[in-house]
Amino acid sequence: MSGRIYGVGLGPGDPDLMSVRADRLVRGCKHIAFFRKLGRSGRARTIVEGMLRADAVEFAMEYPVTTEIPLSDPRYNEVLSAFYEACTDHLRALSTSGEDVVVLCEGDPFFYGSFMHLFTRLKGDCDVQVVPAITGMSAAWTASGAPITWGDDILSTVMGTLDEPTLIDAMTRADALVVMKIGRNLPKVRRALEAAGKLDRAVLVEYASMEGQSVRPLSEFDRETLPYFSIILVHGQGRRP
Amino acid sequence: MSGRIYGVGLGPGDPDLMSVRADRLVRGCKHIAFFRKLGRSGRARTIVEGMLRADAVEFAMEYPVTTEIPLSDPRYNEVLSAFYEACTDHLRALSTSGEDVVVLCEGDPFFYGSFMHLFTRLKGDCDVQVVPAITGMSAAWTASGAPITWGDDILSTVMGTLDEPTLIDAMTRADALVVMKIGRNLPKVRRALEAAGKLDRAVLVEYASMEGQSVRPLSEFDRETLPYFSIILVHGQGRRP
Ligand SMILES: C[S@@+](CC[C@H](N)C(=O)[O-])C[C@H]1O[C@@H](n2cnc3c(N)ncnc32)[C@H](O)[C@@H]1O
Ligand SMILES: C[S@@+](CC[C@H](N)C(=O)[O-])C[C@H]1O[C@@H](n2cnc3c(N)ncnc32)[C@H](O)[C@@H]1O
Repeated sequence: MSGRIYGVGLGPGDPDLMSVRADRLVRGCKHIAFFRKLGRSGRARTIVEGMLRADAVEFAMEYPVTTEIPLSDPRYNEVLSAFYEACTDHLRALSTSGEDVVVLCEGDPFFYGSFMHLFTRLKGDCDVQVVPAITGMSAAWTASGAPITWGDDILSTVMGTLDEPTLIDAMTRADALVVMKIGRNLPKVRRALEAAGKLDRAVLVEYASMEGQSVRPLSEFDRETLPYFSIILVHGQGRRP
Repeated sequence: MSGRIYGVGLGPGDPDLMSVRADRLVRGCKHIAFFRKLGRSGRARTIVEGMLRADAVEFAMEYPVTTEIPLSDPRYNEVLSAFYEACTDHLRALSTSGEDVVVLCEGDPFFYGSFMHLFTRLKGDCDVQVVPAITGMSAAWTASGAPITWGDDILSTVMGTLDEPTLIDAMTRADALVVMKIGRNLPKVRRALEAAGKLDRAVLVEYASMEGQSVRPLSEFDRETLPYFSIILVHGQGRRP
């Protein structure tokens, strides 16, 4: 009997926002795998601190350093691809030997998640089960204290890594907006919001549902970069009785 | 001391996908309020069946019948508005008398949710706390067995209630797509997907994470209406190492 591989979404950061199923799987499973950057503890692992079994076996999947290779360079994909292959080899071996494995995922696994790269490589020959979760954006709009969409508002989710004309076009057309993966793209994102006429309504949420959570108008913020866990929101204004 | 009003997201339907916090609040709170259609049990209430305290006091907020008034008629908004006022009067009175109240919400409360109409009316004078949750769309793409977005895909969420040109435009521009509130708008939604060149990739998910869940290509489905709990997905095709 092969073991099952669970891609378990942990939600936005607060362990209280994990699903009942995720909570049970994390507490009950012996083999726990998670991504992290070299030398960091990793956010997913941090969320479950204190919850693992005493005999838990942890498998930290450490991202190769890629900051010096530009995203457009084919070597970027090659390095990452080899990394994902090595990870899935290990997970496949555990499964073959009959062990279940929980892979910890930040937010929802199938929403811009790293687990997706393991999933596509494993799904052919392993029993992989995905547990959905509360996304970072849900925690962000909850923290903002206002609903993100009303009536038939169109909500678009865009990445700060897109080029400026694409950002401007998407931002102009959407009624409500979520911007993720901002980091050093903040100046570009700010210019695009301005060009789309939405800068004055943009709200910056850092560390939604985590320690250090902050919510403020983007216009009151003049730095050039944002921490990894940052989301910019523009709330919809649709029909409301 | 006034009581607190909790807008508690229950997630997509499977009680196992409620958050640990939602589970605790639902089990612990005496006053439980929820929306339902006249003569129906109400999905939110169904999700928590068997979880409430023995001495729970339930407050069913029953939607006035509105099917004979068109959405564009001002009376539609008037009737709904009076209904929401009556609901919030009751909740405010409970809070004033020192009682906490949990308002049960399908999915995430701040994402096209009915609770938003109570929230905007209560937030000025009551302590209202919102608990985010897994959305119906997260359960839908998890059920579909494939990630919804990759790399820097743009995801757009659109309502089937929008007019056809607006749907076509939004569908054409997005990389990944979620269509909600479809019901009797299915023929229009299908035409718009066709015009946007995305019909062949569209996946229909009914009752995500609920009893009766089904996933199939939309092109294999020839009926004219869908059940309330239906979502159409078009998966993104973005960069993936
Ligand atoms: C690779 S994506 C992963 C998204 C995740 N799978 C989810 O469901 O939210 C990483 C981006 O998500 C956003 N993010 C995720 N969780 C967040 C949180 N708790 N607070 C702020 N931003 C968050 C940030 O924009 C970050 O750059
Ligand atoms: C008024 S919106 C409420 C959305 C909810 N607040 C959420 O976070 O998913 C209702 C629409 O959500 C979609 N929906 C919500 N939950 C669903 C589920 N479990 N399966 C399929 N569709 C669902 C349907 O398209 C439905 O018409």
